[in-house]
Amino acid sequence: MAIEMNRNLIGARPYVPGEQPSESGWIKLNQNENPYPPAPAVCEIMRSFVPDRARLYPPANYPPLRRAIGESLDWPADGVLVTNGSDEALRLIAHCYLNPGDNIGMFSPTYSYYPLIGQMFGARTVVTHLERNGECPDEINIDGVKIFFIANPNPPFGTVYEAERIGALVEACPNILFVIDEAYVPFAGRDCLSLLRRYENVFVTRTFSKSHSLAGLRVGFVLARPEPLKPLLAVCDYYNVNAMSQLAALAAWQARGYYDEQIATVVETRESSAKRLATLGFDVPPSGANLLFARHPEAPQLFCRLRERKILVRYFKTPESRDGLRITIGTPEQMDALLAALSDLLK
Amino acid sequence: MAIEMNRNLIGARPYVPGEQPSESGWIKLNQNENPYPPAPAVCEIMRSFVPDRARLYPPANYPPLRRAIGESLDWPADGVLVTNGSDEALRLIAHCYLNPGDNIGMFSPTYSYYPLIGQMFGARTVVTHLERNGECPDEINIDGVKIFFIANPNPPFGTVYEAERIGALVEACPNILFVIDEAYVPFAGRDCLSLLRRYENVFVTRTFSKSHSLAGLRVGFVLARPEPLKPLLAVCDYYNVNAMSQLAALAAWQARGYYDEQIATVVETRESSAKRLATLGFDVPPSGANLLFARHPEAPQLFCRLRERKILVRYFKTPESRDGLRITIGTPEQMDALLAALSDLLK
Repeated sequence: MAIEMNRNLIGARPYVPGEQPSESGWIKLNQNENPYPPAPAVCEIMRSFVPDRARLYPPANYPPLRRAIGESLDWPADGVLVTNGSDEALRLIAHCYLNPGDNIGMFSPTYSYYPLIGQMFGARTVVTHLERNGECPDEINIDGVKIFFIANPNPPFGTVYEAERIGALVEACPNILFVIDEAYVPFAGRDCLSLLRRYENVFVTRTFSKSHSLAGLRVGFVLARPEPLKPLLAVCDYYNVNAMSQLAALAAWQARGYYDEQIATVVETRESSAKRLATLGFDVPPSGANLLFARHPEAPQLFCRLRERKILVRYFKTPESRDGLRITIGTPEQMDALLAALSDLLK
Repeated sequence: MAIEMNRNLIGARPYVPGEQPSESGWIKLNQNENPYPPAPAVCEIMRSFVPDRARLYPPANYPPLRRAIGESLDWPADGVLVTNGSDEALRLIAHCYLNPGDNIGMFSPTYSYYPLIGQMFGARTVVTHLERNGECPDEINIDGVKIFFIANPNPPFGTVYEAERIGALVEACPNILFVIDEAYVPFAGRDCLSLLRRYENVFVTRTFSKSHSLAGLRVGFVLARPEPLKPLLAVCDYYNVNAMSQLAALAAWQARGYYDEQIATVVETRESSAKRLATLGFDVPPSGANLLFARHPEAPQLFCRLRERKILVRYFKTPESRDGLRITIGTPEQMDALLAALSDLLK
């Protein structure tokens, strides 16, 4: 076609997700999905969704969900935007705050979607290489950075950064917008909401995909002060979240007791699995997410051999993570199966 | 906040949709929703959606739906992208094909979302004013235009443009990307797919919101040649359409007999309603959509008086449409209620 495309997008490649087999029988430990079903009240909402409701456009930025989130996090409801997964929130922030010539900053390794988001809006990516187990070095590269994306906990290791450490950076850089991606935060037990309250250059994103077992329904949200959040409302597809997902997310948000229990189980399973992996000879950095990174010289081979046994974990060829497997925390039974397979393969 | 926003977005305001009352008891003829429920097979899919499926990420660009669409429209499946409503498709096209300095072209009046999409990517809007009843003038303004958006049928009148007329424009302008927004096309009985086959600078968008009674589930799609469609795959949120909506949309696409019948009923109701509105003194341009534009000197007052009676239609204050009401085609009973109310108000 003779029509020139957006020059920012030349060479842009779609995000590469983990494999999602269409048939059953797999142990899926590759996409950081929750192994437990949504709360009974959420399942009930899904089952009782009145099909005729599908005829009508859904409410925009579903007010009952915004209010519920705002109330329980003690944050104004007009400082909450409900999004089609937190990926949409991340993209909207980049769209609203990047101008030509701006850079985006991030750690490396981290969530592989951030560089693509920057490219979408003409920003170059400036990285700060993390230390071996994901710890943050003293020097952070903020060269020309307009938006700094920090996943906390940070994949693929699950590293948790203390709010004080991030806060010092935020305070030192009032002209940088810090996006703290808290997709995994419920598994860490501590968050950065204190920074949101203290600094106006902080946005926090969250998702129902992992902690609330709703990856398939696509609901996330972003928290910021109402004024800097406003441009996102203009850029956001008006009807971005579908009617059933809105209802399910509200029910999930309200089923706190159920999820607290499931999350505690995942955390317990994570800690016991880390110990067992270490016993098998893996080097496992501390994780505050629903995943573990397990280093082993034979990581790529193990990935393939596990796959032959219908156990899916994730293997990344990038320099900083090609020496390990990223393993989602499944049920204790799934982890037993994984560990038995690994033990067998390493014999 | 000291952080400068994207300069393209300064002054951007969110899209303004029709009112969506949260309580029942309204006759809703204001958002071009379908008055009939989704097909029984679609309702069944929604009711039987397994909540545990919500745990897992949905497939990207749902292959079974793409294949089904491709097969029935005789178009390659990799020339189909499934989107979160067709609004997402429109935005993705703008994102992928606009560069600084480009303009977007459109008729006026038309779908009010197009100028906002242009602004999102730094494009100015260049308009061609339509004739009184929506007909296209001989001269079309293409000054600096990179993407021309044509809704066909075109709101708020529902005007249908012949494929030949659009085709002549497409052929004369090989450096302009023509986006033919066929959201309303099932109510027109003829489409522009012939242009998609003939010219590489044509994209066609469709939606399940109106003809398939699924506005609440957010599913649309875009058709283009596979090569020019590729950049959209990189920019599209990877998991843009949720798991239940994918299944429901596939069932809807397959329930063609049901929808053909419902659409025929809507078209019949539109034609009879147009005659009855004319009898009441309204001037009603021909429409090929599930809506009618009904001109009357007292349009704004009628809008308010109908609202008092819990009948919602749409009133736009823009110069080209402030002299009429845009009325979605409801059931015959809803149209009877509307016409009785109008007859009463005009006494």
